[in-house]
Parts: sequence; C-alpha cells; structure tokens
Amino acid sequence: MKKILKEHERIDDLQVDGLKIIQNPEWFCFGIDAVIISHFTEVKRGQKVVEFGTGTGIIPLLLAGKKKATKITAFEIQEDVADMARRSVELNDLEEVIEILHADLKSADQHVAPNSIDVVVSNPPYVISGGGLKNPDSQKALSRHEIACTLEDIFKSAYRLLRSKGSFYMVHRPSRLVDIMALARNCRMEPKVIRFVQPKGNKKPNIMLIKFVKDGNPELKFMDPLIVYEASGAYTKEIFEIYDSENISSFERNV
Amino acid sequence: MKKILKEHERIDDLQVDGLKIIQNPEWFCFGIDAVIISHFTEVKRGQKVVEFGTGTGIIPLLLAGKKKATKITAFEIQEDVADMARRSVELNDLEEVIEILHADLKSADQHVAPNSIDVVVSNPPYVISGGGLKNPDSQKALSRHEIACTLEDIFKSAYRLLRSKGSFYMVHRPSRLVDIMALARNCRMEPKVIRFVQPKGNKKPNIMLIKFVKDGNPELKFMDPLIVYEASGAYTKEIFEIYDSENISSFERNV
Repeated sequence: MKKILKEHERIDDLQVDGLKIIQNPEWFCFGIDAVIISHFTEVKRGQKVVEFGTGTGIIPLLLAGKKKATKITAFEIQEDVADMARRSVELNDLEEVIEILHADLKSADQHVAPNSIDVVVSNPPYVISGGGLKNPDSQKALSRHEIACTLEDIFKSAYRLLRSKGSFYMVHRPSRLVDIMALARNCRMEPKVIRFVQPKGNKKPNIMLIKFVKDGNPELKFMDPLIVYEASGAYTKEIFEIYDSENISSFERNV
Repeated sequence: MKKILKEHERIDDLQVDGLKIIQNPEWFCFGIDAVIISHFTEVKRGQKVVEFGTGTGIIPLLLAGKKKATKITAFEIQEDVADMARRSVELNDLEEVIEILHADLKSADQHVAPNSIDVVVSNPPYVISGGGLKNPDSQKALSRHEIACTLEDIFKSAYRLLRSKGSFYMVHRPSRLVDIMALARNCRMEPKVIRFVQPKGNKKPNIMLIKFVKDGNPELKFMDPLIVYEASGAYTKEIFEIYDSENISSFERNV
C-alpha cells in the first residue's frame, strides 16, 4: 500500500461530502479565507477552472465537492506542497477532476491553453516579502515593487488563461484595495462584485472577496457584508451555512 | 434692509452653533452626505480649506461652525446657486471666513494659489450625465468618458491647489469605487482612509467617505463602518452624535 502521509502530516475531515485533506501543521493549515472564497466562487457544471497557488489543495477540493466543478487545474510553485496536495486529491479519488501542477503561475499558459478557462480563483499570499527589513525606505520601495509584480503577475496570468468575459475570484486583505483596483483595471480584469467580511456588523472588514471579469464593463456591485460573529460572540447563521454543518471542527481549529 | 430670500427659498436652522442656511426646495436641499463628509473632514485651526461644488454652502457652514476653520474658499459653477450660498454666508456673518466663488473648479488655480491649501473637500455630483440616453452602447461610452473627465478634473484640481501631503476628502457612491481608486492613484492623490456608510450593520454600504493625501504613500486604512440605523430602525448613537443634537429636524427632512 502506498504511504499517504509524510512526516508531521495529518489527515483532517472536511465535514463536506466526505472529503478529507492532508495538512502539515509545521507549514500551514487552511483557514476561513479558503472556505469563503470557495463559497463565493461560482462554477457551473462542465466549466474549466484554474487555481493559482493551491497550497493544501483546499479550494479545488471544496470546488469539486460542493460546487461539482468537473475540471480543475491547480498551480503550486513549492514542490513539497504540490506533492502533499496531490496526495489529498488521491485520498479523495478526485484525480479525474483535479490536477495539481508543480509550476509557476507566471508561465501558466505553457500548461493550460490561453483563452480557454471559465473561472480562475486565487487566495494569494498576503504577506509582502521584504516586510521585515529594517530600513523603512528601502522596505517600502522593495515592498511596493514586489507587490506590484506579484499582483500584476496574477492578473496577467488570469487574463491570458480566461476566455472572453471569464471570471476571476480573489480573496485578499482590505488594506490592498487600492493596489488591487488600480492594477485590475490596468490589466483589463474589471472588478464587478465585492464582498467585505466583517468580524462584526459594526467592525471594519478584515477580508475581502472580489469577482473580476475579463474585459468586463465598469460597474462594481457591493454585496451585503459577510458578518462572522453576532454581537453575542457566536458565529452567524451565514457562517454556519457556509461551513455546511454545525460540526465545524476544522474551522474552529484554524480561523 | 437687504432682501435675503428669493422666490421659493426658505431659511432652515442647522441646529449647530446657531447656524442657519438658505435652501430652495425647487432645486435641492442638503442631505446626510454633506453632514457626514463635514464630520469626516479634519481641519485644524488656521488651515486653508477649499471646497469644490458647494451648492447651498452647507459644507463650508458646518466646517466654519463645528470645525472652526478660519478660511474656506468654495467653488460653485451655477451662478444662482452661488448667489444663494453667498447670502447664507452673510446671514451667518461668516463673510470673513467663507468666500463663495462663482467659478469653474477646473480653473481653480486662477483664483487660489497652487500648492497653498491644507484641505480640499468635495461632495461631487453622483449622477452621470448622459445616463438617460436610450442606446445602451453610446450611453455607456458617453458615461464612461464623462465620468473620467469629471472625477479626473476634481482630482487634478485638488492636486494643483494642495500643499505637499495636503488632504482631500470626498463623499461618493460605492459603485464608483474602482473609478475613484484607479483615477486617484493615477493623479497621485493616494487613498489613505476609507469609511463605508451602511444603512444597517448587515447591509451593503450606500455611501463612502475617502481621505486622499497628495503624493501620499500607498497604505489604505479602513475605519469601522458608520451605521445609520439600529436593527430596530432607530438612528444609531453615532448618527445622533454627528448631528450634534437630538433635534434633527433638518436631517429627517432630507435624508
């Protein structure tokens, strides 16, 4: 029998459609962002989906399980992580649906035909590299430069792969709103729908979900905010619904 | 005695520092947007303030009354409206503080020295001209073109008048978020603070307040949302505080 787990890895039950996922707590475990971006992403049966930066593979697993996506190609640049995600796919017998590629999203069009994809989704890294440098000027200059490249790479690769009017879904931090809006428009990935996630109804958002459309017309729609907690501190009904079960053990561990 | 009111005009008590305002209900009356942008705008004593598109003159009156601004120059392109605002200034004996100019904001630097202003504020028109045309394609093309010009004119004029790191405060509709973010950055008026106004804690925003800084560094801070109504339907405590009085008759008429 093939050995499914490597050192430090564990298997978690996703509580959704019998799905399981391999995670390595020494690296990272998926959090609420991955779950809500999967919920926010609209996929119709038969559509082709690409994910940039899959990590554990949580988003493809949820899209395959809950959204019934039929073909998902997920890019992961770290070889060990891609290998772990691939084993999660095998564990769930989803090799026919999900392909994990150990590849750079900047050269995604070497693996996937341009203008062929219906939906791209990404939960990109939020942390700016260079953020720990001590000289504030060089830190800022470096951060700004790297930010622009990273987000721009994602928008440009999404644009290349998507068919005309195809959709790109992204989860990110509100502090990056200006960068994202300005870059998206420059890259002809028009922001069409935005949903802020607020810890409480009267608190500023700490997560945002955005749908972009390739060559879409300018018109941004706001959704009602997704509120995580009631004033009492309990999870809201919508969060329970998104987790699709009152048994949200995976959620509680990682939020 | 000089006649203070013209046909259809009335005098309203602002309930703030004894201020009164002349309004013509046949044209328009100020609403919540003007009150909350005045509250959001930070003015220090002695600072020079410019407003673009003053209408009734409500924002300069509130800035002079509540914020103790000492010099406010307000542009209004419609001659009749500028005249009415000027009479409101006289009615409050604020001619030393507020100057109403019947002039185009695009040529603001012919009236105010460039790089000399600490704070610019604007409650620009939200309605897109051309919005009533029937051909959807030409409507969109025309709207987009006019939108860009109008907002761009405002940002460019604000940039010209403001001193380095001077602040620009604007109230607008969330649907224009992408246009505003992309244009502001192009015009080097960096969005620094944003506050969404939500009718209720669980409802999407219908108004947004943004502070831009001339040549500011990229970093957007969110404030907690301004919630207008409690779940019960009553105004929130913060709205009452902004109106500075429990007698909010002017507010209730116009919100």
